[in-house]
This record gives sequence, C-alpha cells and structure tokens, in this order.
Amino acid sequence: MAKRIEHDFLGEKEIPQDVYYGIQTLRALENFHITGIPMRVEPLFVQGLGYVKKGAAMANRDLGVLDKTKAEYIIKACDRVIAGEFNDQFLTDLIQGGAGTSINMNANEVIANVALEMMGKQKGQYEFCHPNNDVNCSQSTNDAYPTAFRISLINKLTIYSDTLKDLGEAFAAKGRELKDVLKMGRTQLQDAVPMSMGDEFNAFYTNIHEEIARVEESKKLISEINMGATAIGTGVNAPEGYAELVTKYLKEITGLDLLLAGDLIEATYDTGAYVQLSGVLKRTAVKISKICNDLRLLSSGPRTGLNEINLPPMQPGSSIMPGKVNPVIPEVVNQTAFYVIGADLTVTMAAEAGQLQLNVMEPVIAFALFTAITYMSNACKTLKDKCVVGITANADRTKDMVMHSIGIVTQLNPIIGYEKSATIAREALQTGKSVHDLAVKEKKWVTQEKWDEVFTFENLIKPTFIK
Amino acid sequence: MAKRIEHDFLGEKEIPQDVYYGIQTLRALENFHITGIPMRVEPLFVQGLGYVKKGAAMANRDLGVLDKTKAEYIIKACDRVIAGEFNDQFLTDLIQGGAGTSINMNANEVIANVALEMMGKQKGQYEFCHPNNDVNCSQSTNDAYPTAFRISLINKLTIYSDTLKDLGEAFAAKGRELKDVLKMGRTQLQDAVPMSMGDEFNAFYTNIHEEIARVEESKKLISEINMGATAIGTGVNAPEGYAELVTKYLKEITGLDLLLAGDLIEATYDTGAYVQLSGVLKRTAVKISKICNDLRLLSSGPRTGLNEINLPPMQPGSSIMPGKVNPVIPEVVNQTAFYVIGADLTVTMAAEAGQLQLNVMEPVIAFALFTAITYMSNACKTLKDKCVVGITANADRTKDMVMHSIGIVTQLNPIIGYEKSATIAREALQTGKSVHDLAVKEKKWVTQEKWDEVFTFENLIKPTFIK
Amino acid sequence: MAKRIEHDFLGEKEIPQDVYYGIQTLRALENFHITGIPMRVEPLFVQGLGYVKKGAAMANRDLGVLDKTKAEYIIKACDRVIAGEFNDQFLTDLIQGGAGTSINMNANEVIANVALEMMGKQKGQYEFCHPNNDVNCSQSTNDAYPTAFRISLINKLTIYSDTLKDLGEAFAAKGRELKDVLKMGRTQLQDAVPMSMGDEFNAFYTNIHEEIARVEESKKLISEINMGATAIGTGVNAPEGYAELVTKYLKEITGLDLLLAGDLIEATYDTGAYVQLSGVLKRTAVKISKICNDLRLLSSGPRTGLNEINLPPMQPGSSIMPGKVNPVIPEVVNQTAFYVIGADLTVTMAAEAGQLQLNVMEPVIAFALFTAITYMSNACKTLKDKCVVGITANADRTKDMVMHSIGIVTQLNPIIGYEKSATIAREALQTGKSVHDLAVKEKKWVTQEKWDEVFTFENLIKPTFIK
Amino acid sequence: MAKRIEHDFLGEKEIPQDVYYGIQTLRALENFHITGIPMRVEPLFVQGLGYVKKGAAMANRDLGVLDKTKAEYIIKACDRVIAGEFNDQFLTDLIQGGAGTSINMNANEVIANVALEMMGKQKGQYEFCHPNNDVNCSQSTNDAYPTAFRISLINKLTIYSDTLKDLGEAFAAKGRELKDVLKMGRTQLQDAVPMSMGDEFNAFYTNIHEEIARVEESKKLISEINMGATAIGTGVNAPEGYAELVTKYLKEITGLDLLLAGDLIEATYDTGAYVQLSGVLKRTAVKISKICNDLRLLSSGPRTGLNEINLPPMQPGSSIMPGKVNPVIPEVVNQTAFYVIGADLTVTMAAEAGQLQLNVMEPVIAFALFTAITYMSNACKTLKDKCVVGITANADRTKDMVMHSIGIVTQLNPIIGYEKSATIAREALQTGKSVHDLAVKEKKWVTQEKWDEVFTFENLIKPTFIK
Repeated sequence: MAKRIEHDFLGEKEIPQDVYYGIQTLRALENFHITGIPMRVEPLFVQGLGYVKKGAAMANRDLGVLDKTKAEYIIKACDRVIAGEFNDQFLTDLIQGGAGTSINMNANEVIANVALEMMGKQKGQYEFCHPNNDVNCSQSTNDAYPTAFRISLINKLTIYSDTLKDLGEAFAAKGRELKDVLKMGRTQLQDAVPMSMGDEFNAFYTNIHEEIARVEESKKLISEINMGATAIGTGVNAPEGYAELVTKYLKEITGLDLLLAGDLIEATYDTGAYVQLSGVLKRTAVKISKICNDLRLLSSGPRTGLNEINLPPMQPGSSIMPGKVNPVIPEVVNQTAFYVIGADLTVTMAAEAGQLQLNVMEPVIAFALFTAITYMSNACKTLKDKCVVGITANADRTKDMVMHSIGIVTQLNPIIGYEKSATIAREALQTGKSVHDLAVKEKKWVTQEKWDEVFTFENLIKPTFIK
Repeated sequence: MAKRIEHDFLGEKEIPQDVYYGIQTLRALENFHITGIPMRVEPLFVQGLGYVKKGAAMANRDLGVLDKTKAEYIIKACDRVIAGEFNDQFLTDLIQGGAGTSINMNANEVIANVALEMMGKQKGQYEFCHPNNDVNCSQSTNDAYPTAFRISLINKLTIYSDTLKDLGEAFAAKGRELKDVLKMGRTQLQDAVPMSMGDEFNAFYTNIHEEIARVEESKKLISEINMGATAIGTGVNAPEGYAELVTKYLKEITGLDLLLAGDLIEATYDTGAYVQLSGVLKRTAVKISKICNDLRLLSSGPRTGLNEINLPPMQPGSSIMPGKVNPVIPEVVNQTAFYVIGADLTVTMAAEAGQLQLNVMEPVIAFALFTAITYMSNACKTLKDKCVVGITANADRTKDMVMHSIGIVTQLNPIIGYEKSATIAREALQTGKSVHDLAVKEKKWVTQEKWDEVFTFENLIKPTFIK
Repeated sequence: MAKRIEHDFLGEKEIPQDVYYGIQTLRALENFHITGIPMRVEPLFVQGLGYVKKGAAMANRDLGVLDKTKAEYIIKACDRVIAGEFNDQFLTDLIQGGAGTSINMNANEVIANVALEMMGKQKGQYEFCHPNNDVNCSQSTNDAYPTAFRISLINKLTIYSDTLKDLGEAFAAKGRELKDVLKMGRTQLQDAVPMSMGDEFNAFYTNIHEEIARVEESKKLISEINMGATAIGTGVNAPEGYAELVTKYLKEITGLDLLLAGDLIEATYDTGAYVQLSGVLKRTAVKISKICNDLRLLSSGPRTGLNEINLPPMQPGSSIMPGKVNPVIPEVVNQTAFYVIGADLTVTMAAEAGQLQLNVMEPVIAFALFTAITYMSNACKTLKDKCVVGITANADRTKDMVMHSIGIVTQLNPIIGYEKSATIAREALQTGKSVHDLAVKEKKWVTQEKWDEVFTFENLIKPTFIK
Repeated sequence: MAKRIEHDFLGEKEIPQDVYYGIQTLRALENFHITGIPMRVEPLFVQGLGYVKKGAAMANRDLGVLDKTKAEYIIKACDRVIAGEFNDQFLTDLIQGGAGTSINMNANEVIANVALEMMGKQKGQYEFCHPNNDVNCSQSTNDAYPTAFRISLINKLTIYSDTLKDLGEAFAAKGRELKDVLKMGRTQLQDAVPMSMGDEFNAFYTNIHEEIARVEESKKLISEINMGATAIGTGVNAPEGYAELVTKYLKEITGLDLLLAGDLIEATYDTGAYVQLSGVLKRTAVKISKICNDLRLLSSGPRTGLNEINLPPMQPGSSIMPGKVNPVIPEVVNQTAFYVIGADLTVTMAAEAGQLQLNVMEPVIAFALFTAITYMSNACKTLKDKCVVGITANADRTKDMVMHSIGIVTQLNPIIGYEKSATIAREALQTGKSVHDLAVKEKKWVTQEKWDEVFTFENLIKPTFIK
C-alpha cells in the first residue's frame, strides 16, 4: 500500500496514500480508543464542519487573507464534504481529548487534500493548500468546532422535533377516536372520578406537544455562534470584520438563523446552551416515560390488571408462559428515557468541568447529546408506529368499572353534601354495594330522576354543576 | 390545656383549643416525620395558599355557591394568612404523602377557624364555616395546592433573580475595574494567548446575566395554573365559569400574570414546568460552580500557584498552617451548586413517577425547588458580598507572565507564518528563552519596530490583524 | 451583654462573654449562611469531635508534647462535649467553605474555653489553654475533621441499620401471616403465574435485609481514619508514634473498630468511602422505592384497581372526594428515596471535585450523608409502624383472580405441551372463557382428576413437576 | 435468497434460510431500533447465553425431562456458541423491551437451528429440536437471561480489574521513580507544606488499587444466580432438584464461583447487585477523574501554570497556537468518567422502575454496565500507556517553589510557636521575602544550624518532630 510522509510539531508519520485525512487525524486515531464509535455516525456533524470551513474560506477570500483561487478550491472541497462524499474519512472516536482539535484537524486535513486533488496536486502537498494556514485560516478549534457542532445540532433537532410532533398527533388522533369511552380517572392509583378516555389520550398529546416549543427555545440558544473568537475570544489572528462576515455567510449557506455571540470571551467557554438543551431532552424523557408507565398500567392484565386498553401485540411475551403478550414498546421507550436522563448527567458533569477560557469536555457533551437525540427520536417513532396508532379500548369494561365505583359519589356532593356522600362511600366500601343502590334505593337521598340527570355520559366526562 | 374534639372520615381526635389547624393537619403531623422541616419555613408558600383560598372564595361568592357573608369572613381570614399572621400554624413536614392534601387541609382548617373566630364562633364549629364545604369550595387539593405552590415559586424566583442580577453586576463592575490588567488566557490549563482581566471578569457577568432570562422563561411556564380542574381536570363540583373567574381574581390579588391552562386534564398531572425550572437552576449552578473553580484557580498560591488575583481573606485557613488563607467563599458556593444539582435529580425522579391523572410526588418537588432556590440565593449573595467586590489583581505578576510566555508567539503567525512561529515556540520551550529574544534578537525574523507595534497592551487584549 | 475581645491572624472581634466558641467560629457564623441548619442538629458529629480531641490530648500527653495538667483539663472538657452538654455551641452552618476548618475550630474553641473555665480561668485566656496550640495539638483540620465525621457516621449507621432490620422483620412477619393467600404473580404488569402473597412479602424482607450487610461493609471502609496525617499526610508537626497512639486511644474511647490508614497522603484526600456509602444508601432507596411502588399498586382501587391488599388508612385522602383514602405512607417513603438518590449525586459531584492533597468539598458530603441517613431512617420507621404492620389481604379476591386468569395454563405445559396451552390461552383471551372450562370441559385435553391434582394451593404456590 | 416459514403465537414470517435465528428474533429486529448497537458487540454475553443453555440441557438430560440424544446435540451447539462461532447471529439491539425475552429467544433459536443442522435436519424443523420446549426447557427468560448476563459481567469484570491493576502499578512505579523530587503540597489550591512527588504518585496507586477490592466484592454479589426460578421464582415447570443441579453444572462449565439465590422470588426481580456494581464503577470514575484533574493541574503551563510535571506530548494541541501541547489523555479519561457517572444514573432509574415480580428494565441496565465497563477499561489502558508511564518531573522548579514558599513556616511551629510563625508568614506575604531570610537573618528566631536540621529533604517529605 502506497504511503506518504506527513509531519507536524511532534514529528513524522506515514499515511496511506489513499486516505484524505493527515497526520493529526492519524494521531487521534492512535490516541483515542474509548467508545469505538467514529464521528462519521453523525453525518450532520461532518456536514457542519463542511459548512464552517466553507463560510470561513468565503470570508477569508473577501477579506484578502486567503488567495482567491485557493479559496475557491477549498469552497468546492467543502461542498463535497457537505454533500457527504467523504463521511468515511471522519473516523475520530466520538469521545476524544483535545477539546475537538482532532475533529477540527480531521476536517482541515480532509478538505485540504480534497482541494489539492482538485488542483491536480498530490495529497499531502500542503505547500499548495495547508490544513492550518489555509483551511483553518482565521479560525481556531475553539470557534470552528463548536460552531460546526451547533449547526449540526440545530439540524438534528429539527428532525427530532418532527418525531415529537408525529407522536403528539398520534395521541391526539387516538384521543379523538376514544372520546366516547367512559372510564374511571385515578389519582394516587386510587379510584377518583370518571372521565373520557379520549381526554386522557388527548392530554398525552398536550403533554408531548409542549416539548416542541421547548426544543425550539433551545435551538435559539444553540444558534449563538462564536466564529471569529479564535483561540480564546479575543480574535487573535482574525482580520477586522471577519466575525460578522463569516456569520453572514454561514447564515446564507446553512439557511439557519445563526447569531454572532455578543461576548466572544464568554461564548468560547460557555456550555450553557448545551445544558439547557440537555435539560429539555431530559424533560421530554421524563414525560414520555410517565406516559409509557401509564400505557403499561392501563393495559395491565388481561385478567388480573386494569385491562382498560389493548396495545398491539408485537411479539410473544414469554419463553415459558403461553399466550403472554407484553407491552414491549413502552418498555423500550422507558429504557431509552433512562438513557437520556443519564446522558443529561454526563452533560452536567462535563459542563461544570470547564476551566478558564475553554471547556475542554465538549466532545463528551457532543457524544451525550447526539446519542440522546438519536435514541429519543428512534423511541418516539417506535412508540407511535408500533404502539399508539394500534391501541384499542375495552369500552364495556371501563364503563362497567365506573358505574360500580364508589368515586362517582363525588358527583352527588353538591346535591346531598359532603357528609352524606361520605356515609354512602363508607357503606359502599364495607358492604360492596353500589353507590346507586345506596343513594337511590336504600337511603332515598336521591331520586332516580336526579340520578339519571347527573349520571349521563356527558355529565360524567364534563360535569356541569347540578344542585 | 383546653381541647376540642374534631372528627373526620376516620374518626375523632382531640385538638388543643388554641391551635387554628384541625384534625386533618393533626393527622399529618402524626404521620409525617421525615425532614423535621415544617412548611412555615417557606412563608411565601403559606401566602400562596392564602391567595388561592381568597380567590376561590371570591369566585364562589360571585357564582352563588358560597354564602356572601361567609365568603367575606373567609376572605378576611385569608388576608390575615396572606399577611403572615398565622405562619406558625403551618407545620406539616415539607416532605409528606398525599399529594399535598395535608397542606391544603392545613390551610382550609386554619382559614376556617380564623373565620369562625372573626364570626364570634368557637374554633371547630364547622357548621358555620367548613374547611371542606366552604373554604375548599369548588376546589380540590389537586388544583389548589399546585396553584399556591406556583404563586409562591414565582414570587420566590423574583427575589432570586435579583440576587443573580446583583452578582452579575458585581462581576461587571469588577470587570471595569480590572480592564487594564493584562494577563495570559488559558485553554485546557495550558498557556494560550493574552487577554484583559477585565474581559475575563466581564465574561462572568455575561455568563450569569443570561440566567436571568432563563429564570424569566421558567416563570412563564410556572404561571400556568389549573384552578377549576378540581379532582382530575374534569372540573367536577365546580360551577360554570368558575375556572376563568378564579383565575381572573388570582391575577388581580397576586399581581402576577397567571394563565389558565388550556388542557386541565393534562395540567393536573403535568410537572414539566418544575422540571424545566429545576433544569435552569441546575444550569446556573453549573455556571457558578465553574466560575468559583476559576476564582480558586486564579487565586491559587500565593507562591506556588497562579496567584493572579487575591480574594478577600475571610478567616484563618488552617488550624495548623500559620498564615494560610483559603478561598472559603467560592468553596461554599461550589458546594451549594452540588446540592442544587442533586436536587435537580430529586425533581427528575419525582416527575417521572407521576401516574395517570396526578403526580403524587409534588411535595418532594416543592422541597427540592424551595431549598435549591433558597440555598442558591444565599450563595449568590455571599459570593458577591464576601468575595467578588473585594477581589484585587496582581497586575505586575500577570503582565510579567504574559511577556515571558510562549503563547504570545501566536500573534506573530500572520507576520512570519505558522512554521516559523512553531520553531520559536519549540526553542523557547527547550531553552527557556523568551519569544522576544528569539524572534527579534537571535533569528531576526521580526524587527524591534514590528515587535513594538504588535505587542502593545491594546493589541494584546483586542488584537488587530497585523501582517 | 458582656463581651470579650479575641484576635486571630486577620484581626480582632468582640465575642459575647457567655459563649464558649471564639473568634474563628464567629467568623464562620458571619461567612456562611447557606442552609440555615447548624451543625448541632447532628449531635453525633459534635460527639465525634469530642472523641477526637480527647484521643489527641491523651496521645499528646503521653508523648510529652502537651502539659499533663492541661491535657487532663482538655480531656475533661472533651468528656462534657461528648456528653452533649455544649451542643448548643456548635452553630456552624452544615454547608461551609474551608474544608471543615470552621467546625474543627468551633470544637477547638469550645473545648479550650470549657477547659479554661474548669481551670478557674476566664473564657478567652488562651495563654493557659490554646485552641490551636493545645486542643488542636498534633492535629490539622484535615485529619481531625474527617476522623470525627467518620466516627459519627459509624454511630449513625448503627442506628440506621436497626431501622432497616426492623423494617425487614415487619415484612417477614407479614409474609408469615399471609402465607396462605393465593395470588397472581405478575411480570411486566401482565398476568404471569400464581404465587403465595406470603412469599411476595417475604421477598421484601430478603430485599431489605441484604442492605444491612451492605451498610456493614460501608462502615468498614468508613472505619479507616487518618489521625496523625496533619496537613497533607506527611505528619508534619506530629510527634513520632502519635498516629498509632491516638488511633489506639480512639478505638478504646469510642468502642469502634477504627483502623489507621496505610497511606496517609492518600487518606487525607480520599473520599471513596463516602462515595461507597452514598451508593449503598442510594441502593437501599432504590429498593424501598420499588417496594413502595408495589404496595401502592397492590392496594390500588378499591373498585377499579388491583385491590389485593389494604393499607391501614392514615388520613382522609381528598379534600373533595368523600371516602377516598390514599397510600400516603408509601408515598412519603418514595419521596424520601428520591431525596436520597439526589443526595448521592451531590456526594458524587463533591467527591469528584477534590484537588491535589485535599478534598475541600467534604462539608457538603457530610450534609448530604447526614440528611440522607436521617431521612431514610425516619422513612423506614414510618413505613414499618404506619403501614407494613397493618396491611391486610383481600384473600377471596386474589384467589378468585388466579382461578379466572389465563396464566394458570402455564401449569399445563408439561402435560399437554406448549402448543396446546397456547391454543387454550388464545381462546380464553378471545372468548372470555376460563382455562378450566376450555381444558377440561370443551377440549377434554385434561381430566378433572388431573386438574385437581395440579391446581391445589400447594402446587400453585410451590409447583412440583407434574406430567 | 431462499426463505423458510416460521410461525409463533402471533402468526407467520419468512426467514432467510441461511440465518440461524428464527421468527422471534426477527420480530425483535423489527421492533427495536434504538441504539443500532447489536448485542454481538458483547461476545461475552453471547458466550454467557451459551453457558446457560448448556448447563440447562445437562441438568434436563440428567433429570429425564429432555431426551438424551437431543440434549447432546444441544450441548454441542452450545459449545459452538460459547466458542463464538455464531456471534454474528446475535443481532438484537442492546436496548430492547420484553425484559430480555428477545435475547433469550435469539439464543434459543440459534442453538436449536445449530443443533438441527448437526442432526442433519433443516433449520426450522423444530419438531426435532424446539427453541422453547427443548433449548429453553425448565427455563424462563427471567432466570436464563439474568444468569447469562451475570456470567458475562463477571468475566468482563475480571478483565477490567486487570486494567485497574496495571494502571495502579504504573502509578506505583512512577512514584518510585519520583521519590526524590521535593515539591509543595497544596490544600484548597493554596500552598500547604512540602512533600515528595513520589508519595503523591504513590497515593494515586493506593487510590486506584483499592478499587480492585470493591470490584471483587461486586463480583460476589453478581455471582448469585436464579436458575430454576423460571417465570417468577416459584419454579413452575422445572423438575425437582433442577435449580441445584443446573447451578452445579454452570459452576463447572464456567469455572466461576456461582451461587444459587436463597430466595428465588426476590432474586427474580432484584437488581441490587447491578446498582452496587454501578456504584463501584462510578466510584472508580470519580477517583480517576480526580487524578486526571490533578495531572492536568500539575502539568499546567508551561510558563504560566504550575509546570511541575510533563505529560508525554501526544499530538499538536492547537490548530492556531504554535507549539501548544495539551493534556489530551487525561482529558479523554475525564470525559469517560462523566459517561460512567451518567450511566450509573441510568442504572439507578432502571432499577427503581422494577415492578412486582420482575424488573423489565434489565436490558438498559446491561447496556449501561457493558458500555461503562468497556469505556472505563479503554480509558484506564489509555491513561497508563499514553500518559502515566511517560510522565517526567521538573524537579528543579518544584524544589525551588518549595524553598521560596511561605508554607514551609509550618515546620517551625514546634520550635518558635504558632504566633511567631504566623508573624513570619504575614511578613513574607506582604514583603515578598523568604521565610529563611525572615526567620534566620532578620528576626534571628532560628539559627542557621537549626534551619539546616529542619529543612533537609528527608525532614521535608517525612517530617520528624524537631523542637
């Protein structure tokens, strides 16, 4: 296999001639073996690096710090990276040291070599197009890396938002479908008062739907970038006007509403936007986990549980118990939520560990956020497709439970008062008799007419005040 | 000691005649011994209950479901509770079971008995003013409790926001004071490039100041209330129009921009707003912890550390080492941050544990949020008063470190190129020589004039692009 | 009010003449206002400090570095502190900066002044007995504080262990009481196979009982102390043989199996034992929370839930729903568990924040561990007294559910094979028929004799292999 | 591509003829798309399943519930699975629903088809060897899955322990190498008293070495298995004596000290051992993170930091700052530690979510533990190989810092008393003079002879008590 020699500050290394990355990427591949998951599993991240390098080249060209012809080659090389043509060259382990330098250099090297090839040069002839001097011109890892990360996060969150929306809509549709199913509401797992199952499912919609707004707010925070900050935010080595110009170009290229940070010193170390986003992902995880807990509770049984709803059977539930079918989809979603909650802690620890002018722990933040968003997207899609849309209700059973419950006595409070209601409740509990029999037949505190007026379906699920 | 007898669903109990709470509060006092911290330590929470009960009485009066005279007595009793006159009657342990029922009943009983006294009746003569039928009229714990909690949270957050603002301003003022102090910026704890210490402190301002906006966003989510939901959100036992009317009254009484939730079923179990708020408190904790880590690093020494700044000495630092003074204020703030981060996990667990139509774990959420906000407020105030305002810089030392650093070679990149800069850097590191001597005297790659042009204070802290 | 003047490294302060603490404690009171919870709420901690100071005085006396008479006065003063006589003088906020220096000095000052009084001197006449030179002789905060903390932890854990044991025994007793109650076992909330309710409760015993061994293991790690390490573990200022001697004395005085750490440099900063202990507390919290979840599930209803068991009613469960009784005790225990899990994160963060020769975050570790143990002890005691001992079973209902379940078909697998069993299961589910009717009457795959042989109580709860 | 038809409880599916798994595995592949990480990345887990199925077949054969010839074929098939020959057939996503049923069935199906092939039958001819009736005979997922998981965990932990040991030894060796380097100890980042750098590194050894014992304790808890429990611990469908026999065989086959749980009901749902193990992994992560923080601090600089040690340079540290080299290896280890700490929270949440007779969240526990152990092993190995072994000390500088420090005044306490020492400390701080000049020359409180006696290298790093 043909090799080329590259050198850096620390010495020389042989690189296989056919790869586009260079010596610094190779060092990263040697140094970092933690997860075994290469950064190419996040193609949006590679794309984000392409955008950043392209925007920088455009600004550098306009400001005269990068030769026009060389700039055009770099821009073309970036376009090919953006298109995903070189994803297989981005191999750095997602958890690395160096605050992203390896990933930034991976991009610089690949783009330089692609440009060199298009110029008709050999890979490695950096005197014609240099990873640091040219591709990284007016940049530092400390601005290029987080900007690329943020661009990719925003694009990833847009996809994620759509899965949340779809899941919400599925619950809303199911809510409409089940609106005439009367069921018992429960608080603290104890029988409370009646409700419509449609309203219960519609509340899941409301619950999830709110998350979309939270994600949008987070995206806004993520949209603040620090291009032009270079090493620590003072902008050393960047020409006048560069920060504003590269931001303008990046907005155009990406179509995103990016914003240049007002305080570049702070922006260079601040990880607040990631903490906020992670908190929102956690919040959604908490909500979806609660909903899945409910789905599992409501479908418990079939004979010795609540048995209010049926989840679509996805697979035999037991290697030993014939006919057992388990709520495997909510179960896998619960577990995904636990992963996301754990990932939030990883982000928290990493954010707290920032020191002075930089937070060197950003790669593990990227790892945690990327996996959390991916897994949650997958979980939401799975929950919708393989569970929610196929749910059916056992309407006769749920209605029957309502009418035999004691909780419906609450509806008599305004008519007979809390004390008499409590008396009926106690007797019902002790004797097993129904509220109807006690109230109407035995004690005659309520007439059958009044009973019928109160206990209509409409009045049970949306009670009006009847005295 | 005189006693009165009260009874409830479960039996009778003797109550000391002089206390305003009744049998259900007494049961709570018997049942819940966890933290030993009574709810009266949060007077804003007691006040919030007063507001809720007052607003409900006004709406009930208008809608004809509560006798006008009785309503006025209840309203007056509420005013006294709001004023803090009966804080000592709110004794329920902050962590309780029952989803807040004990706290709601504590309020109902105290207000009923205060009203009874004002009517000229005896405490306990509930036939004239009943905790459940009258004070709790058209309400359930499940709407009254979270609404009172939310009102108190908003008021508490307003105070907290002010301490954040004050702390931010103190950093900004210190930034202005130190703007002419030249110092070395550091990334990954390694020497990077120069900066102004004023900019470093101003970045702390930026970092903290952003939190105020996050708190305000959280307050907005918290402002959504569910009065009129009653037991599970169907509004059973509440008269037509009540939800809107009580919300209108509560807005007036509290002066807060409260909003009736659009989906009362969902609002009754949703704890998303608390998770979001807790996430924001955590975010601030993470940031302040990072800042305190920096203050401790920068003040490390005095002889074998960075020794860039001096924190005001607050107390002898050692029982054995004479003259040692430690950064005790940042240390206590770090620890508070760790508490807040732990509290966020408590909130997360509690939020995830909601089931069906209610989240019964809301009391521990209240405990976690109340303590987190209180401790953080205290920590921010302490940090400002006892540390930030008194910080001084060792300007000669920090300037000296800059000029003897190797990192300043970065500023020569545009003039002599990255390769030559790297050569100087390597030699400086190996020989201990200064960049100046190598660049100007030995290698003569830079003239003294050019050197002087580049290495002005202004150009070191806000570099312009010099070629 | 009479005052005395005291001075330290940083200046002078007036101290009320009647207090036993001195200037350094006063500074701590001024500096640290975070939780508002003074260290005296942990009398075992005050006692631990008394032990440490006494042991040190004995060793110092023997080794000739402390005047014999003075030593005896210090020892007598320590005995009074150990007895709890001066608990009200220990006022430092539980979360402080300074790595425990304030708490160590609080002890040094109180003991010095108590000794002075016994000598017939005035408080503050430190020339006769000095907080640092005499009471703190051969010590540093960095060994005295953690040793005192560890002694108090061990004693606190012994009490805690007993509450775990009591709770476990209550479950075991309930298990024996309910051994003849047949019920359906459930996996994944779906009907599985039958079991004895006694075995279910006995499993709770097993689950909790194991924790006692974990706590004992943790106590062993906590028993490693670092007396003699002084400032950083090199033993500067401590006389030859001191470390071993003071450890020997401390073992005698406390009656605990204390052990001198082998590597004092490491022992001075290591917080591993606290992390381990906190992990064990979290483990117990996780288990108890799971058990409480089960108790709430099993007692759900009464009409629309599982309704297998009845928890003792502790208080009316609703301010609006008559007759509702909620599982308030398990609920409060769940919430306590969430606190403990959050506290574990606080400990984790604090432990990770150690730097170089010391972990300055130990006070918040103490705060987190003390509150976690206290709250958990309270929760366990509450759970036992107010819930477990009063649980009753609805044995008719649970037996009825078993016999009408489909899950019992599993018991026919060895006789008719998995395929036929699955056929019965499917038909039972679709038609609502019982397994018995399908197997014996309709399909005649099992004779009534075989059925009777298989479906005895004994064979349902402890199945033998019948073919 | 040739297909075969398989059916289960829920219907039929086409399976590619060349794959060894069957319909239930296929359903799992369709249902679970969360992480995209197939279980084959954990070959030890596949091996564990092979062991379990082999042990069960041996016991079933002996007890006469499995045909001898069929048993032998199953055993041979298991041997090939144990040898790793069919790892590529284990494709279920590591996070799945169903409490491991899919993974258990994946094993049952692969083993059945391998056995069928060896019998000369076609894959899918389950009438000759059935995944459920034969391979899964006397088992349920609820005992087979956790037992396989535990066996693989123990084997994985053995490897992990070795990396901990190697890392510890590397620190110990470095400690021996650096034993004559005098340096300043620091507490709270402030100069404390002198020490040997060798002792500092040896303390890292002590710190890490302790973890091995904690891992061993965890392995002991993990060694408790529940074979024979079948569905819920009652042992339904397992023949008399099976549990003991299969445990005996598993001990023999695996060479591990496995133990049959005493309470099979409890053992079937208990996840305590995982929580304990996860807590231990977290503890190690906390410690290693602290050590890496120290390495980064000690190597900070080179000109404006502590600069006590040099880490081996692994890669250029900046895309913009020439000559910058960063502590990339400790950085990547810190980040791995944050992952592990987050994974512990995932385990905690999952463990708490167990309900009644099973914890359905075990797969995400497996995912979290497997990744945590793998990443930590990788990080420990990386830290040793690429950092610790190559560390060098700047001994002149560290000695120089000691002798110019103020902290050495502590060593004069026993000679001149704390008050005079404090005076010197104060003056040294204010004037910049050295302790030596003040003590010996200016104030003449110490003679040069005494000074020389006290300030020997030996006495600085292991002080004896000199008066």
